[in-house]
Amino acid sequence: MFNKKMYDLGNVSSEIRELFEYGKKQKAILGEDKVFDFSIGNPSTPAPKEANEELISLLKTKDSVSLHSYTSSSGDLEVRNKIAENLNERFNANAFGELIYMTQGAASSISITMKALVNEGDEVIVFSPFFPEYRVFIENAGGKLVAVQPDFKTFYPNFEDLERKISSKTKAVIINSPNNPTGVVYEESIIVKLSDFLRKKQEEYGHEIYLCSDEPYRELIYNDKQYPFVTRYYDNSIVFYSFSKSISLPGERIGYILVSSTCKDASELYKAIKGAGRSLGYVCASSLFQFASPKFVNLLTDINIYKENRDLLYNSLTELGYTCVKGEGAFYLFVKSLENDARAFKEVAKRFNLLLVPSDSFGVTGYCRVAYCVKKETILNSLEAFKELKKYYEELKDE
Amino acid sequence: MFNKKMYDLGNVSSEIRELFEYGKKQKAILGEDKVFDFSIGNPSTPAPKEANEELISLLKTKDSVSLHSYTSSSGDLEVRNKIAENLNERFNANAFGELIYMTQGAASSISITMKALVNEGDEVIVFSPFFPEYRVFIENAGGKLVAVQPDFKTFYPNFEDLERKISSKTKAVIINSPNNPTGVVYEESIIVKLSDFLRKKQEEYGHEIYLCSDEPYRELIYNDKQYPFVTRYYDNSIVFYSFSKSISLPGERIGYILVSSTCKDASELYKAIKGAGRSLGYVCASSLFQFASPKFVNLLTDINIYKENRDLLYNSLTELGYTCVKGEGAFYLFVKSLENDARAFKEVAKRFNLLLVPSDSFGVTGYCRVAYCVKKETILNSLEAFKELKKYYEELKDE
Repeated sequence: MFNKKMYDLGNVSSEIRELFEYGKKQKAILGEDKVFDFSIGNPSTPAPKEANEELISLLKTKDSVSLHSYTSSSGDLEVRNKIAENLNERFNANAFGELIYMTQGAASSISITMKALVNEGDEVIVFSPFFPEYRVFIENAGGKLVAVQPDFKTFYPNFEDLERKISSKTKAVIINSPNNPTGVVYEESIIVKLSDFLRKKQEEYGHEIYLCSDEPYRELIYNDKQYPFVTRYYDNSIVFYSFSKSISLPGERIGYILVSSTCKDASELYKAIKGAGRSLGYVCASSLFQFASPKFVNLLTDINIYKENRDLLYNSLTELGYTCVKGEGAFYLFVKSLENDARAFKEVAKRFNLLLVPSDSFGVTGYCRVAYCVKKETILNSLEAFKELKKYYEELKDE
Repeated sequence: MFNKKMYDLGNVSSEIRELFEYGKKQKAILGEDKVFDFSIGNPSTPAPKEANEELISLLKTKDSVSLHSYTSSSGDLEVRNKIAENLNERFNANAFGELIYMTQGAASSISITMKALVNEGDEVIVFSPFFPEYRVFIENAGGKLVAVQPDFKTFYPNFEDLERKISSKTKAVIINSPNNPTGVVYEESIIVKLSDFLRKKQEEYGHEIYLCSDEPYRELIYNDKQYPFVTRYYDNSIVFYSFSKSISLPGERIGYILVSSTCKDASELYKAIKGAGRSLGYVCASSLFQFASPKFVNLLTDINIYKENRDLLYNSLTELGYTCVKGEGAFYLFVKSLENDARAFKEVAKRFNLLLVPSDSFGVTGYCRVAYCVKKETILNSLEAFKELKKYYEELKDE
């Protein structure tokens, strides 16, 4: 009677959410410290105290009507100019406030942009393993998701598979670095190679292909390489950003879309984004959080905590005999499952109270995602369980 | 190249927004007090100080990770339970937290619900004059807006026209009381009559027709009649709410959808709403504003300010010879334009620096909307201009 597709979407919890809910129940039975929940990408570090102070200061000092009024649907222009300024200082991004559209986080940025770009039947390429909601947003816009396999050594894109999968129907390509679920960070050379490839394809097909860079983990990088900001490499590029991870405000829903000024008909494209936001019911991003954003851009949660977790988990699991991808960013470790079927592996791991997300929902088989945005002691306490889990599979093999 | 429909939506500012922008420029030329901007429904009263205090207190005392984490996509259950409790106390609403879905305001509530209800080709009935974005949200969901004319004496629905327009394709009916743009508040008898009518039609067509009540102005009523809460009158009812107007937080985007527990398959319908929210990119409503909501439900901006404005404007314009609808709620006065073409009238009014929104974009001709959520002195200063405008038309007639 009501919309069946929406019902189906709402009826099936994501695999991640399901594990997370199972974990909560299991903790109630066994105790908090007996269940090792690595299921969910909810930042475990507090927001920098300056973030909360800025919000308090706005609430205390800014006139209530100015603070809480509707902003323009694109966001307050002064705020957008300051964000652009910061991006230009840090990344030489050539960003303009007029081409920034404030959103309620990265998910809405993707959803809105897909709606703006895609015509019925267009294809959007994503690189496996990928964030499962990409499919939802692409399909909601009437597009078709086309997944490209990774190079399983590096978890960079497999360009041979990309060459096979790209077509004249390709409207956009989404990249996500640092990556959820692998933690892998794209080297500059990958962005250069991908840009060259897409330019060639644009010429071949005679139309634009948009390179969409989904960057909620942009600041969560554990080496000191410069982030290759996509607008510097490819004209038709669009950036999705969120303050969720960098300053631990995932529940507040604040972020933006940046349309590169080098995009063909950039200001027309920007209007399509405004129209898409309007059609989906986005009025404006929270004015309080918008006004705090010029402060937010200079803040960062304590990422050493994540780095320490990464090192501890990577070193310990490697020592125990697990094969892990050593990602240099985000807060995920991608671990080879101990049997081919990662979903079966997940079930076995659950018996040891280890909650690991099988890679299947990310579009590849045989791995699991370990979200290490947890307390250090959770990792320490879990090591015995990881050891037992390994032993279990070894004994199986011996039988 | 990108989506043309979205481009068109983003390219055309609403008539309201256009007038508002014109007003800002005109004020820069003539001075703030020389332009009488009645164009936009942005609350002019501050948020109650307790609202800001609650936000500050949460920021100061609640643990940062708990405060700013993702909530469940439907919203924090404890918050939803408290909202239900409050609705039950005030309206005997028979509301349940499990059937409340926290949203980023009324626009997203409507957009999400239309997406959840509508199948391609379904019709949704609205009552003229109506909020123009209804069309955008209904069409985004693949539905068709069907507008029913008002009874021009009362600006209640014209039931004869409703009988003509309703069909077996009707999936939902949207009401909006207190009404934007007329300020009219539906009497209980109207809700009773509409409910009876829809029940009869449900039986006739053999399927559900949802009564959707869009209630951002619910608390802005200037008589002391009890608000006829729709779940008490009609089983298949859904409520859209926002704290934007009642406590002057329009820019913050916080509100909810309430599915009546009496809806057929209520919990299945609720899942479709969750799925629709997911598909549009809504992750959760701002956690800070969610956690403040149990406090918000007990607060109200100073609505006497609006009532005084309404009385002053209504009495003054009536005295000057204008014909006005005396709405008992919201902050809009609906005034008969002094020539048939309200858009032409708007242009003439602009010459007197009076910014009035023609009724055409709300689906009726011959009126204009005067948003009196302004400073009292703006009204006082505008009266001379209203007088001159009237004189202008009288002299035209005499010629």
